Amino acid sequence: MATPSPGYSIIVKVQAPATFTATSDLTAVVAEAGAAITALDIVDASHESNIINLACNTRGKEHSRQVKDAIEAVDGFEVLSLSDRTFHMHQGGKLQTISKVNVRNRDDLSRAYTPGVARVCTAIAKDNSRARELTIKRNTIAVVTDGSAVLGLGDIGPEASMPVMEGKAVLFKQFADVDAWPVALDTNDTEEIIQVVKAIAPAYGGINLEDISAPRCFEIEARLREELDIPVFHDDQHGTAIVTQAALNNALKVVGKKLEDVRIVLSGVGAAGHAIIRLLKASGAKHILAAGRDGVLEPNTTQRDEHRQWLADNTNTAGFSGSLKEALVNADVFIGVSAPNLLDESDVASMNTDAVVFAMANPDPEILPTDASKHAAVVATGRSDFPNQINNVLAFPGFFRGLLDAGAADITEDMLVAAADAIAETITEDELNPSYVIPSVFNDKVSGAVADAVADVAKRNGTATEPASKTPDDIDF
Amino acid sequence: MATPSPGYSIIVKVQAPATFTATSDLTAVVAEAGAAITALDIVDASHESNIINLACNTRGKEHSRQVKDAIEAVDGFEVLSLSDRTFHMHQGGKLQTISKVNVRNRDDLSRAYTPGVARVCTAIAKDNSRARELTIKRNTIAVVTDGSAVLGLGDIGPEASMPVMEGKAVLFKQFADVDAWPVALDTNDTEEIIQVVKAIAPAYGGINLEDISAPRCFEIEARLREELDIPVFHDDQHGTAIVTQAALNNALKVVGKKLEDVRIVLSGVGAAGHAIIRLLKASGAKHILAAGRDGVLEPNTTQRDEHRQWLADNTNTAGFSGSLKEALVNADVFIGVSAPNLLDESDVASMNTDAVVFAMANPDPEILPTDASKHAAVVATGRSDFPNQINNVLAFPGFFRGLLDAGAADITEDMLVAAADAIAETITEDELNPSYVIPSVFNDKVSGAVADAVADVAKRNGTATEPASKTPDDIDF
Repeated sequence: MATPSPGYSIIVKVQAPATFTATSDLTAVVAEAGAAITALDIVDASHESNIINLACNTRGKEHSRQVKDAIEAVDGFEVLSLSDRTFHMHQGGKLQTISKVNVRNRDDLSRAYTPGVARVCTAIAKDNSRARELTIKRNTIAVVTDGSAVLGLGDIGPEASMPVMEGKAVLFKQFADVDAWPVALDTNDTEEIIQVVKAIAPAYGGINLEDISAPRCFEIEARLREELDIPVFHDDQHGTAIVTQAALNNALKVVGKKLEDVRIVLSGVGAAGHAIIRLLKASGAKHILAAGRDGVLEPNTTQRDEHRQWLADNTNTAGFSGSLKEALVNADVFIGVSAPNLLDESDVASMNTDAVVFAMANPDPEILPTDASKHAAVVATGRSDFPNQINNVLAFPGFFRGLLDAGAADITEDMLVAAADAIAETITEDELNPSYVIPSVFNDKVSGAVADAVADVAKRNGTATEPASKTPDDIDF
Repeated sequence: MATPSPGYSIIVKVQAPATFTATSDLTAVVAEAGAAITALDIVDASHESNIINLACNTRGKEHSRQVKDAIEAVDGFEVLSLSDRTFHMHQGGKLQTISKVNVRNRDDLSRAYTPGVARVCTAIAKDNSRARELTIKRNTIAVVTDGSAVLGLGDIGPEASMPVMEGKAVLFKQFADVDAWPVALDTNDTEEIIQVVKAIAPAYGGINLEDISAPRCFEIEARLREELDIPVFHDDQHGTAIVTQAALNNALKVVGKKLEDVRIVLSGVGAAGHAIIRLLKASGAKHILAAGRDGVLEPNTTQRDEHRQWLADNTNTAGFSGSLKEALVNADVFIGVSAPNLLDESDVASMNTDAVVFAMANPDPEILPTDASKHAAVVATGRSDFPNQINNVLAFPGFFRGLLDAGAADITEDMLVAAADAIAETITEDELNPSYVIPSVFNDKVSGAVADAVADVAKRNGTATEPASKTPDDIDF
């Protein structure tokens, strides 16, 4: 049975008798019903009764109703309302725009707006590169989706994707002070998406593509990178790849193996799998097998699209032929970005000693980490309720912070490698252990380390554009 | 000669001798050079010298240099830097995004983002109308431009238009707590603009079109109104029309004339002129002459586009034929949204007694208000340095506040009339006088009055959609 989760957190407003035992009776009945109480406040009172707000985590919708029924079954208790804390948090949206300047009087107005603003516009019209100095472009990116592959929910459309895109923007701001704006598009057409993103690009210093289904995401990203002069990053691909690579760097340290020596089996040849394999290769991995639903991809075979073809042509150099389970025998590393419950304990047992298992299918992994850890030395998942969570939040905020700081015009493979290294290195040799190969998402060293690493690469490889000076002094006006 | 303006405000950092008279010597030389000093601070000091930051308004770039030279000509004074306060204000852009929710720990993260957010997405996927409840759509609009008709600067492009669009967003927030986001499009193609705005619309509760040149602005607005289920408002048209109508209502009260009786001559048949005439007619005006460059438009003539044709067919019922100046003879009201210096004193003198003159060409009006007021009873302009400023800031923030509060799906003519009435009525009978027919942009009664008026109309005429309840209690989860 599932445990109560903060994802199903409710506030029950209860009218209870004003007796000495009423609150303890209430907490007892809620605990008895299986909910985990997180807070209790008396918000109003009279001589006869108290109004109590009780917050608790439940196992889901049905369980929340059971908690309500259990309270009401107690003589003298009445549930006045039931409020869902998750829905409450999203009420009215999670993002707002705020002015960075004060407009208190006519003088302010005449500088922030007409007539003063005209001179600023003219300066940019003369030299478009000054947009990075004099507009929000310097610190602002677009989080672009068409709502076609949102979380595990599939094609839920642009409106329904907004809570995720807003959440992403919240994380960009919180973890890296990047202003991100959700752009949820009412079209699934590849050409139209490319056209729209190009049209809105002037305001932005970068584009984060999000939750766009494969294989369209590959073409959209590739074309936008070619046709825009700002960096374009598909987080489902590269964010996942960076954090996976970071965790693998540390996991291999724990087991004392080298990336170029290990045999890696990857399950799932979609967007994430594709990006992970590219980054593994760029980082030095030499023995990679990629498995789809029909088994391991083999060289000299014809695949159904160019992306899968690239995988077949660039992995499995030994020409292995067989299923995922067969490939796992004697493998050192399993990376899953595919589907729940593909593996069982015996598969992990068949791997090499000191095996590394990253079972990242969401929300349910390829194998339960408790099962995998019986035979593997290091286990990681995408979930927050087990150690070693592979979470993109470790990558995307700092990555874009670095791009914006450098005014980067493009994203290069060495930036991805540098970002992965930076995340891995936030864990010191002294801290490293099998259940701590990747830092917590709330580790405050990560974002800055990633940003510095990315900006350094941009400055070295020539993708940086930002002029050194950001001061308004001695402007040639 | 122009007077020093806050639009050309500079900060001069000066190293001066540490003598008792140094600051007075400095202010004297700056005043002597013709600049208006607004602030002076000693920001650093040693035994020998003071570092002084002196802020002053100048007449322009050249004058700023003269001020600098004048200071440096004084023995012992050295200018360390010259900083432009307008450019300083725009540095890094004027807008940022802020989270409305706290993400302090894993519990928060699991509700704001995965896994909790999935339930919110699913609720919207089931019923798209819940986007107004659970996303930023409820309070967020797009400020859309293609940069083709920005201020008086013309087609300066999307990057250069951003300081204006950001400024507009700042004003939306400050005056009506509307979250507005700048969308500066890298295309001038009518069909592409329509397509892009439709594609990005799901995130927004309204679209404010801005600084798009005529006649494309007409078709873009009309098509988007037809094809979107959120309100679309071209501020250059309707914002200007609302504030003009508001000022005219009050001006006619001052002179004791009725809208349906007066003879109105309008100069300028572009976007603003077109919208003003439509609103004048909706408000009850019966005698309107519209003058373009070739004189007054006449019925039963063929005009070069459908918009001008509409004007010709719906004004000048008496069949007057002649120039703008000829039309003004015995006219009661002049409204100019055209070009500088078209009229002289004698033209105003030829008007009816108690004439009303709104000379709103920007930045230089059709006739200087000081000249017009020699013969007219009420004079208004678009400028902040004369009484009776016709400024769109009085209309657009409150107008969209009302639309969002009502969840309006469309904009109707009676909303425009109601908004104009609301602005006019913020000035009481006791306050009304020839130099106070329109409230200040900083009058804090205006925005709320406009919002209430617009929302009331939306609720009455059926364009409102917002459900009554906004509380998260008892959500059907």
